[in-house]
Amino acid sequence: MKITLIGVGLIGGSIALKLKNTGFASFIFGVDHSENHLAEAKSLGIIDEISTLEAAVSQSDLVILAIPVDASSKVLPKVLDLVKEHQTVFDVGSTKFGIVNSVENHLNRKRFVAFHPMWGTENSGPKSALLESFSGRAAVICDRNNSAKDAVEVVEKVIENLGMHLIEMSAEDHDIHTAYISHISHITSYALANTVLEREKEENTIFQLASSGFGSTVRLAKSHPEMWVPIFKENRENVLDVLNEHISQLRKFKSALEKENYDLLEDLILNANKIRGILEK
Amino acid sequence: MKITLIGVGLIGGSIALKLKNTGFASFIFGVDHSENHLAEAKSLGIIDEISTLEAAVSQSDLVILAIPVDASSKVLPKVLDLVKEHQTVFDVGSTKFGIVNSVENHLNRKRFVAFHPMWGTENSGPKSALLESFSGRAAVICDRNNSAKDAVEVVEKVIENLGMHLIEMSAEDHDIHTAYISHISHITSYALANTVLEREKEENTIFQLASSGFGSTVRLAKSHPEMWVPIFKENRENVLDVLNEHISQLRKFKSALEKENYDLLEDLILNANKIRGILEK
Repeated sequence: MKITLIGVGLIGGSIALKLKNTGFASFIFGVDHSENHLAEAKSLGIIDEISTLEAAVSQSDLVILAIPVDASSKVLPKVLDLVKEHQTVFDVGSTKFGIVNSVENHLNRKRFVAFHPMWGTENSGPKSALLESFSGRAAVICDRNNSAKDAVEVVEKVIENLGMHLIEMSAEDHDIHTAYISHISHITSYALANTVLEREKEENTIFQLASSGFGSTVRLAKSHPEMWVPIFKENRENVLDVLNEHISQLRKFKSALEKENYDLLEDLILNANKIRGILEK
Repeated sequence: MKITLIGVGLIGGSIALKLKNTGFASFIFGVDHSENHLAEAKSLGIIDEISTLEAAVSQSDLVILAIPVDASSKVLPKVLDLVKEHQTVFDVGSTKFGIVNSVENHLNRKRFVAFHPMWGTENSGPKSALLESFSGRAAVICDRNNSAKDAVEVVEKVIENLGMHLIEMSAEDHDIHTAYISHISHITSYALANTVLEREKEENTIFQLASSGFGSTVRLAKSHPEMWVPIFKENRENVLDVLNEHISQLRKFKSALEKENYDLLEDLILNANKIRGILEK
């Protein structure tokens, strides 16, 4: 299958490496606004040829959008303008409601599949792409009935090649769940980094003392704003709901400590411990 | 060297495994209030003999306290009552101000070294102990001048055998730094778990969607209250300071989103990104 990859960074690059490895992708055209990233992606074997959007799409069976969610919402209508009945388009963005709305009335809407493979790291760019990345993770297809059956089947084949398991839901539900499971973790992590940076001016001490717990909690704070500002913008209302709930949960810890109510503190922790059973099911 | 290990769980067990592995420990007496843990520790080769506090201490060169910080503050004076001039005692607790105060005026204060090897996991008990755990991490000795020179030298040998690097500071500074680097991470993680558990009643969805980012941010929320309530209690004022700062940092994200001020949101994220340079130095 010939593929156009729009965005040759962490996510697009990792998908490309795996689809070439399994033989699903026979040829990949790379499209990106960064010439450096295109050159890197070519030398890393992520793409076979650097191309323009129009030239690449006209020669491809499948078009993958792997760019920040605000850029996807702008580029997708242009891509759908170009595609023919046999071609499939999917995005990989972390928000879905905005992008499905951006093409709701497009004549070629059915060629598009709203897709979210749930994996990522705090790194970005082609050099961060990994061959084995998505395996074992959840792959979400949203609003399946708004896509053509054969287009969904192509994405299902991609999911199979990536070694992921399929989950289906509406774009609206997807954005609520990801606010809880992914977006709030990033805000928490950014805020924690800023807390430490604000008060701990002796940077060397942070470095020397930072234990593994701190490293894992703050890891996501390394994630770039080019990807995350658009996600928070697109999913603003859900993220605000969750953020309010999170601040209120932190206030319970604060109150328990202020009042020296250690029974309440223990209850709060015991409740949190339930996450163990859920994550390890 | 003959060692008494008081507390045969994650931290004590991991230290024992390594010190036996390097040959530093010739024999380890295990003391613990849990008979199950003692039996497990014996069968796992963590300890050589199950003993009582008095019998064990009388036969040991070194006594290690690896129990929750509130228990340490109670047991340490009893241990110091028993030790002679040639014996060394250290604890491994995550707070230091309380324990050094608990023996400030003890006649044998100089035999005690306030120690904190900065490593841990969300698990507990002898079965969680790992041979290779502390290597490459920071080991803090507090208030060095209040301990006998030869006692500090024993702990320095332990640090060397564990493959850690030594940092020295006052107990007071230690507790401020650990509030930032370790204690707040746990509260954030507990609160995040409670946020998700509160709103996401469809537990199956959490499990299916949970991406690696969520897993790493919420990992610490599995940590047990028996260890953490006493830490928060001992370090209450510092933890409250940091928690207030953290809530205020989260409010900045909230305000940026509410006001749709995406330039501010980007600035907050760019500031948080600085943690990358510090953690990877």
